[in-house]
Amino acid sequence: MTQPIYKKILVPVDGSKNSFKALQHAITLADNCQAEIGILFVLVLAKQLYAYTQINTSYISDTVLDEIEEFGKKTLEEARELVPIHIPVKIFLEVGSPVEIIPDFAAENNYDLIVIGSRGLGTIKGLIMGSVSAYVVTNAECPVLVVK
Amino acid sequence: MTQPIYKKILVPVDGSKNSFKALQHAITLADNCQAEIGILFVLVLAKQLYAYTQINTSYISDTVLDEIEEFGKKTLEEARELVPIHIPVKIFLEVGSPVEIIPDFAAENNYDLIVIGSRGLGTIKGLIMGSVSAYVVTNAECPVLVVK
Repeated sequence: MTQPIYKKILVPVDGSKNSFKALQHAITLADNCQAEIGILFVLVLAKQLYAYTQINTSYISDTVLDEIEEFGKKTLEEARELVPIHIPVKIFLEVGSPVEIIPDFAAENNYDLIVIGSRGLGTIKGLIMGSVSAYVVTNAECPVLVVK
Repeated sequence: MTQPIYKKILVPVDGSKNSFKALQHAITLADNCQAEIGILFVLVLAKQLYAYTQINTSYISDTVLDEIEEFGKKTLEEARELVPIHIPVKIFLEVGSPVEIIPDFAAENNYDLIVIGSRGLGTIKGLIMGSVSAYVVTNAECPVLVVK
């Protein structure tokens, strides 16, 4: 091998099977390329939830938002446990709109690659993230690997 | 390294700078993963040219189509020369609609990954391929890596 192609690989997760499939893919790739992995969960707040779903977010109580945050933290811990000990890994919980946060976070933290699932959570759970891969492909500065 | 993640990487090229950038990316990745590379040029025939451009293709003579075929062969040869000798490489010229041919070709020939440029040729030269990465991301069965 001449030189590793990626040093830092970012994987956004939303708790969906597809995002964990993307993580598994990223783990093998990181192993091949001696890269480190960053796992990112984007916590969508009420304003963004409204923008995504057009649901009146005044019905979404603080308790529900706390539950979503708990879900995010739990998802990140589950994700981290999947990464073998010899691969460096960091987890991040950010707040905002995933389609903006993911490309910005990758650029600001010098990630070389984003590995993302082609679909997010389904219709109901999609409240949390939804499918954002197409937007990330368009908006990211770095290469984006879409896992089916 | 536990095991290589990719055995066969497919790179569609259309002669654009962006497609050659994708090829360079694929070469380093193939080197990291000990993969072989397939380079594919899709020759768009009159019927497809019409579908893409809405230009009356009766104006497109056989000579022009011959020139496009020559351009395809030349592009493939130039692409092949970029691949270092220790990486196995094959070139392919297929005829049809790129958005259909690329995913089908990848599936039929057991490619593990498609590496594609985010933009194809510009407005005028786009007659030949145009930007098809979004369609390939949607339609491919395998993971798709979009290079900026």
